Amino acid sequence: MEMHRVLVAGGTGRTGKAVVRYLTQRSDLQVVGVVSRTYAGRNMSELIPEIPYEIPVFDRAERAVGVVKPTVLVDFTTPETAMRHFLLCIDHRIHPIIGTTGFTASDKQFIADMCRVNELGGALIANFALGIAIMQQALALAAEVFNHAVVIDYYSDQKREVPSGTSQQLSEFLAQFDNYKTKPVPIYSFRIPGQHVSQQVKFGGFGETLTIIHEVSDRICFGPGVAQAILNIHRFNCLVTDLRVLL
Amino acid sequence: MEMHRVLVAGGTGRTGKAVVRYLTQRSDLQVVGVVSRTYAGRNMSELIPEIPYEIPVFDRAERAVGVVKPTVLVDFTTPETAMRHFLLCIDHRIHPIIGTTGFTASDKQFIADMCRVNELGGALIANFALGIAIMQQALALAAEVFNHAVVIDYYSDQKREVPSGTSQQLSEFLAQFDNYKTKPVPIYSFRIPGQHVSQQVKFGGFGETLTIIHEVSDRICFGPGVAQAILNIHRFNCLVTDLRVLL
Amino acid sequence: MEMHRVLVAGGTGRTGKAVVRYLTQRSDLQVVGVVSRTYAGRNMSELIPEIPYEIPVFDRAERAVGVVKPTVLVDFTTPETAMRHFLLCIDHRIHPIIGTTGFTASDKQFIADMCRVNELGGALIANFALGIAIMQQALALAAEVFNHAVVIDYYSDQKREVPSGTSQQLSEFLAQFDNYKTKPVPIYSFRIPGQHVSQQVKFGGFGETLTIIHEVSDRICFGPGVAQAILNIHRFNCLVTDLRVLL
Amino acid sequence: MEMHRVLVAGGTGRTGKAVVRYLTQRSDLQVVGVVSRTYAGRNMSELIPEIPYEIPVFDRAERAVGVVKPTVLVDFTTPETAMRHFLLCIDHRIHPIIGTTGFTASDKQFIADMCRVNELGGALIANFALGIAIMQQALALAAEVFNHAVVIDYYSDQKREVPSGTSQQLSEFLAQFDNYKTKPVPIYSFRIPGQHVSQQVKFGGFGETLTIIHEVSDRICFGPGVAQAILNIHRFNCLVTDLRVLL
Repeated sequence: MEMHRVLVAGGTGRTGKAVVRYLTQRSDLQVVGVVSRTYAGRNMSELIPEIPYEIPVFDRAERAVGVVKPTVLVDFTTPETAMRHFLLCIDHRIHPIIGTTGFTASDKQFIADMCRVNELGGALIANFALGIAIMQQALALAAEVFNHAVVIDYYSDQKREVPSGTSQQLSEFLAQFDNYKTKPVPIYSFRIPGQHVSQQVKFGGFGETLTIIHEVSDRICFGPGVAQAILNIHRFNCLVTDLRVLL
Repeated sequence: MEMHRVLVAGGTGRTGKAVVRYLTQRSDLQVVGVVSRTYAGRNMSELIPEIPYEIPVFDRAERAVGVVKPTVLVDFTTPETAMRHFLLCIDHRIHPIIGTTGFTASDKQFIADMCRVNELGGALIANFALGIAIMQQALALAAEVFNHAVVIDYYSDQKREVPSGTSQQLSEFLAQFDNYKTKPVPIYSFRIPGQHVSQQVKFGGFGETLTIIHEVSDRICFGPGVAQAILNIHRFNCLVTDLRVLL
Repeated sequence: MEMHRVLVAGGTGRTGKAVVRYLTQRSDLQVVGVVSRTYAGRNMSELIPEIPYEIPVFDRAERAVGVVKPTVLVDFTTPETAMRHFLLCIDHRIHPIIGTTGFTASDKQFIADMCRVNELGGALIANFALGIAIMQQALALAAEVFNHAVVIDYYSDQKREVPSGTSQQLSEFLAQFDNYKTKPVPIYSFRIPGQHVSQQVKFGGFGETLTIIHEVSDRICFGPGVAQAILNIHRFNCLVTDLRVLL
Repeated sequence: MEMHRVLVAGGTGRTGKAVVRYLTQRSDLQVVGVVSRTYAGRNMSELIPEIPYEIPVFDRAERAVGVVKPTVLVDFTTPETAMRHFLLCIDHRIHPIIGTTGFTASDKQFIADMCRVNELGGALIANFALGIAIMQQALALAAEVFNHAVVIDYYSDQKREVPSGTSQQLSEFLAQFDNYKTKPVPIYSFRIPGQHVSQQVKFGGFGETLTIIHEVSDRICFGPGVAQAILNIHRFNCLVTDLRVLL
């Protein structure tokens, strides 16, 4: 079987760099390029000394696609850039694995429609951490028993999104259950210098609460989920939005 | 349909009293008696002023059974007393709902065997809180993804069991999964004056942790699970040890 | 020395009842009466079975004062009622120990002025828990080093005040420090069924956070602070608003 | 005034590298060299791309001292190596700033004695985070009111020390107070993959607990304390073990 050739857009940002660091440790896929305006023309080993092989950095995805011929494009950029990259993926039948957050509902619908029409497997997932996928499944269990819930996110002050894309996804997920159909699940967002990333959902009942907390000590936690998506996305001919399907 | 007639052994202890307080608010069952040496001969309304009807307190379950003819016996006592009560249930075909903890493995096996042989529905559940039932289901999800877990319990210094029965149950539950077959899941128990009850399980992975926390603000949280057990136990002819089956 | 004679207004509410439960365990003071419309004419031992002596319940403080001649009035009611009781204290030179929250800034000023003019020792303290007094002292240390802080309160949905009086006090306290003079310290309030009371302050710095959390498992935690206030208030001829002064 | 010339031993380890990253951002001191067997002969900018100036890496402190003439040696190594470095500091009147943990009590005494005899200012501090210094001050307040305490540390499974040096220091600090003289303050240590660093102390009282939690999202948190020590240590002629003295 042919090796998966991965291009990582936004691979010099905080999350993207951690994902590159993880992906290069694996022998079942290869990172063939990174897209980053800031570091264009350099090599990823200058940014991540422990990286085991050379990865060129390109200024634009369009150029990188022509040179390194990726089969998968991993995207941790901004909604605007990610949409441009997505269209590039459609054109070249490259599987898009999108971890970028901040898309509008109609953007998301467009991405899903384009994947379906073009019968191209792609993934759009707000949070690739395995713990968040488990958390969401656990929410489904708790949502049937408890009729009160709050979503909470703690991030450092460098996180621009308020609330986080993950919080929005979790709140929307809970809204599907009967217990929350009439009252939206509120989101509380904390932005505190020095704060590690923590996503929480708390349920309240009769004399008891149940709280599920996901905490990140290293953004490398997003790597395993991205790797699973890279390895399995070719089995799909539509957009996947639930990480569990790809595990 | 005949009303469920409930005798509560240990109904003047901290958990038992909270359960009585909850059960007397419901119209689909009736608490016909309480067993308590300390308060024998008195009436529960002296201990719980807001109780809506009179409940006599008996010194012994044997006497209470003869007088109030219960169909269900709820037990929050000690392993020795609970075992005596259990045999009384077998003799009189009263459904035992046992929340007492601290039984040995062979005690538990005996209780299960006796229920099966006598085709009597009974329940033996370490923790009747709905949140703990949900927690255990969530553990099953996380245990398949994370290969490191710890169980933690926080109680006040008045809790004698170390670790708690719930912690033991959760640790044994996790031990069934492949990820924990070779290494037992450790339990850490804190006994601190003024501490509210908190049962926690923390999973560790690649740069991330997932923590599930159950907290009790009022022991009335055990009431709804006990009520569901009372209402549904007659449908079983064996011992039930998973609360979810009774919900 | 004469025994302190304590009248507790609101002594059948959730906090008031816990305080009465604590105060009656002490031999250095005596609860001579409780004021409660709901339970007027009854005796506190009907509500708190373990109480060691009889305490009559009065419908109005005015009547109670005439009958039981208190030297101290402890108040856990509403701002309106507490203000009426306060004026009664001024008239009869009874020391007011006020745990009621929700007063306006001008109300508080009026209470302080009246105590000073009448040279009567009184206490107005939003939270009598010893842990909150320690927390506030710790805030003073942290506020000099960290220039970012948030105040958080978690209560059950039965708590009407949003934010809590304690949160407001803590936020105002922090506002005195240079680090927070230009930006107010935000308060986040959670009201969740089944939630135990938790007051938190989180500070953020360079790659680190420091969080101070006070949690209540039993409202009896307010008792020791109230007792200290009762025993020491006669040494003051003005209003005391810092519990530490009374310890 | 002459610029402080800093040599960082262990400057390529996880904590050491973060401290170098922080120190090189400051204009009031200069990192003139790093000691690291693994990276000897290379330059720190290869490991930390964003570093603003060149820093040579030496295989041994002895060699580095001869070449770069440091005025301060910052040490994040092992007890054995740090002791050798300390003696080198004594010989060359270089101020030692030691963040290495794991010393025996007699080692610590020896270091203090040597500083005093040689009238050389030095620092031996288990944890340079400002939040830990504040935490310790807050413990002093709480220890006078609460007579029950536990120390807890959470680290990833890569942390070898169990318990952490910080936990030991906090437990020993609390042991000085009357409330803990007869019963040692227990330490609970968790080592969980993916866990961020968290040091906690929990106090228990009458119906309440007070918990102080320090959490690290980036080891750069140790930088500001080390910088303050570098800037101020020349004012001392003995060993300093309390970071607050240096702030």
